[in-house]
Parts: sequence; C-alpha cells; structure tokens
Amino acid sequence: MTEIKLVKNVLSKNDELAAALRRQFAQRRLLVLNLLSSPGSGKTTLLEQTARTLAKSVRMAVIEGDLQTERDADRIRALGVKAVQINTGRGCHLDAAMVGNALARLDIDGLDVLFIENVGNLVCPAGFDLGEDFAVLLISVPEGDDKAAKYPIAFLKADFLLLNKIDLAPFTNFSTERFKMDVSRIKPTLQMIELSCTQGKGLEDWYEWLQTRISNKRNATS
Amino acid sequence: MTEIKLVKNVLSKNDELAAALRRQFAQRRLLVLNLLSSPGSGKTTLLEQTARTLAKSVRMAVIEGDLQTERDADRIRALGVKAVQINTGRGCHLDAAMVGNALARLDIDGLDVLFIENVGNLVCPAGFDLGEDFAVLLISVPEGDDKAAKYPIAFLKADFLLLNKIDLAPFTNFSTERFKMDVSRIKPTLQMIELSCTQGKGLEDWYEWLQTRISNKRNATS
Repeated sequence: MTEIKLVKNVLSKNDELAAALRRQFAQRRLLVLNLLSSPGSGKTTLLEQTARTLAKSVRMAVIEGDLQTERDADRIRALGVKAVQINTGRGCHLDAAMVGNALARLDIDGLDVLFIENVGNLVCPAGFDLGEDFAVLLISVPEGDDKAAKYPIAFLKADFLLLNKIDLAPFTNFSTERFKMDVSRIKPTLQMIELSCTQGKGLEDWYEWLQTRISNKRNATS
Repeated sequence: MTEIKLVKNVLSKNDELAAALRRQFAQRRLLVLNLLSSPGSGKTTLLEQTARTLAKSVRMAVIEGDLQTERDADRIRALGVKAVQINTGRGCHLDAAMVGNALARLDIDGLDVLFIENVGNLVCPAGFDLGEDFAVLLISVPEGDDKAAKYPIAFLKADFLLLNKIDLAPFTNFSTERFKMDVSRIKPTLQMIELSCTQGKGLEDWYEWLQTRISNKRNATS
C-alpha cells in the first residue's frame, strides 16, 4: 500500500465518522464549532470570555485538544462550563474518532453549542472534518499580516475569521489592510471580526454571530 | 501494512537521509541549524537581523520552508544572502529529502552556516531530523507562557531556546518565571536567551552563541 493511498484511506475513514457525528449533532439541533489557530492565538481566552458572558443564557460545553496537560479544560471548568480534554500526545490535530470518544465522557443532550478547540497548528487540523457546522479560524496580530498568504489551507477551510489581539497592533508592524487583501484573494466570502479578548473589543459582534448561528440551528429541520 | 508501521518506515527512511546530509555537512565543516517555531514567532526577522549584522564576516545561506509563497526567501535575498524556498503545499514540516533536493539549487561550498527555517508548526517538525547540528526553538511572548507545558516535544527536540518579542511582555500577562519553570521541568539542560529582534535586545548574545558554534564546527575533525 502506498503512502498516498493510506492517507486517502485515513481521510475517507475520517469523513465517514465526521458524517456520523454531524447526524448526531443535527438530531439534537446542537451547533458545533471547530476552533483553529496557531499555538497561543487566544482560543481558550475567547472561550473563557464567551463563558463569562453567555453561560447563563446559552448552554455550552467544550472539547479541548492539546498534546499535553489539562490546563485549557481546567480554565473552562473554573467558569462552571463542562469541558473534556483530549491529549493527543504527539498528534498534530484532532480527528473525528477522537471527538467521538470524547462524547462518551460528555453529555451533549440539551446543549446549545459545543466548541471544539483544536490543537494549536495552522496546517494539519485544516485537513480533518470533525462534524462541525462551522470552522472558526483565529489569527492573532503578533503572528504577522502574512499568515493568509503563507497558510492558505486554514483560510480555505475557515467559515469565519477572528483577528485577535488587535490591542497589540500599535506595537507591531501588522497592517490590517495587507492582511485583508490576502484573505480576500484566497477566500473572498470569508467574513472577519477584529477582536481583543483581553480588552473586550469586538466581543459583542462575536456574541451576535454566535447567537444567530445557535438560533438558526435550533430552528433548523434536522 | 498498518498505519503505525508505515509511519515508522517513513521516519527510518528520513533518519537515513538525514545521516547522509550530516556527513555531507561535516565534510565541509558547515554548521547547520534547524529553526523551529509556531507561525509568526519571528524566525525570518531573526535571520534578517543576523544577515544585516554578520553577512560581511560570516558566509551564510538559508533554506526556507513554507506551505506557499517565496516571501521569506525574498526577504533574505533582499539582504544579499542566498536563499532557496521549499514550498510544501499541504505539508506540515520539512524532511531530509526536501533539504537534499534544495541542496541541488544551493551551492554550500565555502559556507560557514546554513539556516533551515522550518514550516511554522510546534508539533510535526519536531519529529524529523534534517541533518542539523542544532535545533533552535523560537517561542514568542504573545503566544503565552504555557507553551512548554503544552508542546513538550518541540522543547525536547530543541538544543537552544530563543524567547522572542520580549518587547511585547508589558502588554501581555506572560510570566518569564512560569515559562522557565515549565522549560526546566521538561528539559533542564536547555539554555535560553531573551530576544527582541525588532528592538535589537539580546541579539549580541545570539551572535556570540552562533559564532562560537561556527568556530567549533570549523575546528572539528570531520
């Protein structure tokens, strides 16, 4: 068996499992988001802020993907939100089988939204469907305005884009214009919000986007 | 053939090619560094600064690894330093075969140091030997002080650690103490320099480290 054929088999097996997850989520009218980013772009901080503001009105849970540690799940649990940690060891992305296994440890009945925080990596996670409704890509300003041009597959996979840590823009040479130009070349339909999770800027727009999607999913015919 | 067996075969084939590269580099007494980091931690900016300061006294060249674009190679060439770009497409790391192929486009005779800038990714590149003398890991402050705990395999692979963008520390909650504590738990022998490539802080220490390694390699018996 050649390497290429094996990779194709792995991906096709993943697609089958992801389709089964998607049916399971649809039956429950549960919105599922797959969060992608480089290491340290602010995925967990975004989820913390979201939990602080919405956990009383929105029933949420989180699946955390990391090579090691329960740190991210602990941060979420500290806010009273259910979180399951997947440790991938040397694994560079989550796959649908891992998400399926995590569901054995997480009761998703009655939830409005399930966040899946992928392993911090702008390359490999883009290749694996997790049964999500939307892939949300976070890019943080200190990473530089060349990220869309250099990592296009993550942008092609993304359904929504969050530009985080814009509070650090004055201390870097990041050009929002250059960044947007690359994004629109790669995926012209990709909508973006500018955020500062630590300073609260843009979060209202994110909550609005999220609540609209929850509401659409709740009213969808499964 | 099982997936695990295939991965083992790929790694063992890579090790063979890496060993051949290492012999080739040793014959020329050429120092080779493999630069690892997340996307946007400042690898190319470090190489630009190094080229600006040392290119008159140190004969250097760069192999650039990226999914797409010649941008990084162009930045290096603009400073009069030879650079070859490898575009990996969807590939999440460089391997020894790619480096071997790049050498067909790069004359390494008479060089003192060859920098290999890996694909921005804290996971996959750590598994692939490129025949380098030292793996140099860059972590940037805005990524957060939990990176060693969450991505230990990159720290285990690293022979030297650069903590970059320390000029941004006052605007984040990064604790150098917490970061160092995790690093020393994972790899107690790993030496670290604090850097700001944009503001020039710590660069003298980096140049000293580099020049000592070049000099040691030049005087080594191959």
